[in-house]
Amino acid sequence: MEIAVIGGGSIGLLFSYYLGRKNRVTVYTRTEGQSEAIRANGIHLLKKGCDFRAGVNAAPLEKWTGREELTILAVKQYQLQSVLNSVAERMPGDASLMFLQNGMGHVKWLSELPVKNIYIGSVEHGAMAIGDHSVSHNGIGVTRVAVYKGEAGPIKHFTEMELVDFPVEMADDFRSVLIGKLVVNAVINPLTAAFQVRNGELLDNPFFYEIFKDLFSEVAMALRLEDKEKHFANIVSVCRKTSANSSSMLKDIEAGRQTEIDGILGYILEEAEGQNIDTPIIRTYFRHIKGKEFQRGASI
Amino acid sequence: MEIAVIGGGSIGLLFSYYLGRKNRVTVYTRTEGQSEAIRANGIHLLKKGCDFRAGVNAAPLEKWTGREELTILAVKQYQLQSVLNSVAERMPGDASLMFLQNGMGHVKWLSELPVKNIYIGSVEHGAMAIGDHSVSHNGIGVTRVAVYKGEAGPIKHFTEMELVDFPVEMADDFRSVLIGKLVVNAVINPLTAAFQVRNGELLDNPFFYEIFKDLFSEVAMALRLEDKEKHFANIVSVCRKTSANSSSMLKDIEAGRQTEIDGILGYILEEAEGQNIDTPIIRTYFRHIKGKEFQRGASI
Repeated sequence: MEIAVIGGGSIGLLFSYYLGRKNRVTVYTRTEGQSEAIRANGIHLLKKGCDFRAGVNAAPLEKWTGREELTILAVKQYQLQSVLNSVAERMPGDASLMFLQNGMGHVKWLSELPVKNIYIGSVEHGAMAIGDHSVSHNGIGVTRVAVYKGEAGPIKHFTEMELVDFPVEMADDFRSVLIGKLVVNAVINPLTAAFQVRNGELLDNPFFYEIFKDLFSEVAMALRLEDKEKHFANIVSVCRKTSANSSSMLKDIEAGRQTEIDGILGYILEEAEGQNIDTPIIRTYFRHIKGKEFQRGASI
Repeated sequence: MEIAVIGGGSIGLLFSYYLGRKNRVTVYTRTEGQSEAIRANGIHLLKKGCDFRAGVNAAPLEKWTGREELTILAVKQYQLQSVLNSVAERMPGDASLMFLQNGMGHVKWLSELPVKNIYIGSVEHGAMAIGDHSVSHNGIGVTRVAVYKGEAGPIKHFTEMELVDFPVEMADDFRSVLIGKLVVNAVINPLTAAFQVRNGELLDNPFFYEIFKDLFSEVAMALRLEDKEKHFANIVSVCRKTSANSSSMLKDIEAGRQTEIDGILGYILEEAEGQNIDTPIIRTYFRHIKGKEFQRGASI
């Protein structure tokens, strides 16, 4: 199968490596320099002390024409709008697109895209890009995918590949695919970034754990979660399994980068406001992280 | 006038220096080593690039007998209980005590003290201890004092000394003396410590300023403040005047020390709970700072 992966960050490289083992993959990157490095070296995956390699093609984003059977958009949510704008004119009506962004904020844009098939995925792997063409696979998780619009055809292949350490599961309802991850991200990411601690500290520090529970309660209320206990147990389990890890939002804050706070707590805050529910703790942590981003911007 | 100052930290040294210029002052310290250093060198005050000196007497706390006409307790609120316990047996019934602690939490203990005169003071100076016998006077403020119990006699002298850069004002109501400072400390200290920013950033960062306003609203509600606008304007003014300073709570957190959070947000949280008022933002920042203190304790 021919697959396009848009984005040369950690998730783009991770998917390109695994899919590149059984498919003809082209990675579309922001810079020609990164494309050259990938064409010359392939993609290297670092896992448990070993260095694996998959040969893939690569080109800058301007070259994307949508001729591949499936295009995977593996950019951050806050980069998605500009990527879609830059490829809009070349997008074939029969294209199949898969979106891997965190949060729910981008879903409202998808109904307007004039393409045949749209899929939504949620990635639970831990991965970190190392240079232009290498990615470290730190935590093996699952990719869940669901049809947003169109036919399941191209995605069936995707879920049937059975790649070691890269399981893909099909789900019926794209909302449940995104909500589960959104709830996890909404609690773990802002709190670890605000307290500047690793994930496990949210459970091990009794004061932080009280805030963790309060924030979850507001998130559950704003999103009208039905199975609250199951979601809560899932967050605790993710926190425990990744206890020694720094969350992506903590890493972003420490590196002075933009975070995904708008698509996570920003989205939930809008949901709460739309229902006239007051969520002071969500509001406070949303502003806390926005303030940290502002500090970085103001100091440039 | 003979004056005892209990405590060799920044406020104890600041008061000992200024009062030592016109009075016979004895500083009571935790260690004999610090007493020796003060007896040998006097107290040095660093201000605007100059080094001033005042000769004072000094002794370890065990030597305090309460024979001085006024004893000033210049220790942190969380140290006060243990200081009072250790001097309780020697405390003369005709003693005059002045308390300079932040917060309101200690006021409930004062009614049980079997002494003649009790005064309450609030200190607005910026000061930082430098070694055993030196203090840097970074921000010149006012000391406000009021009678809690007994006669104003010993304190009259105190307010009439007219020391340059050390103004003392008498107030009628000890509650208003403490509340003004408590409100300022309740907003500026926890937020600067949580965001790890200097005071001015609370006004200059629009996201932090929104949290600042929300936290003030809860504090005003919990303390049933009557003149809300005046208190708010005062916090803004203090924040502006000290914009380049790090708050004491930020310094405490950075140094891994205990903070005054129990006497500040902890006290206000109890006030709110006593009235069945929900104050989620106060609760969250109280836990945030307690969690930071716990991290330090857990890492020892």
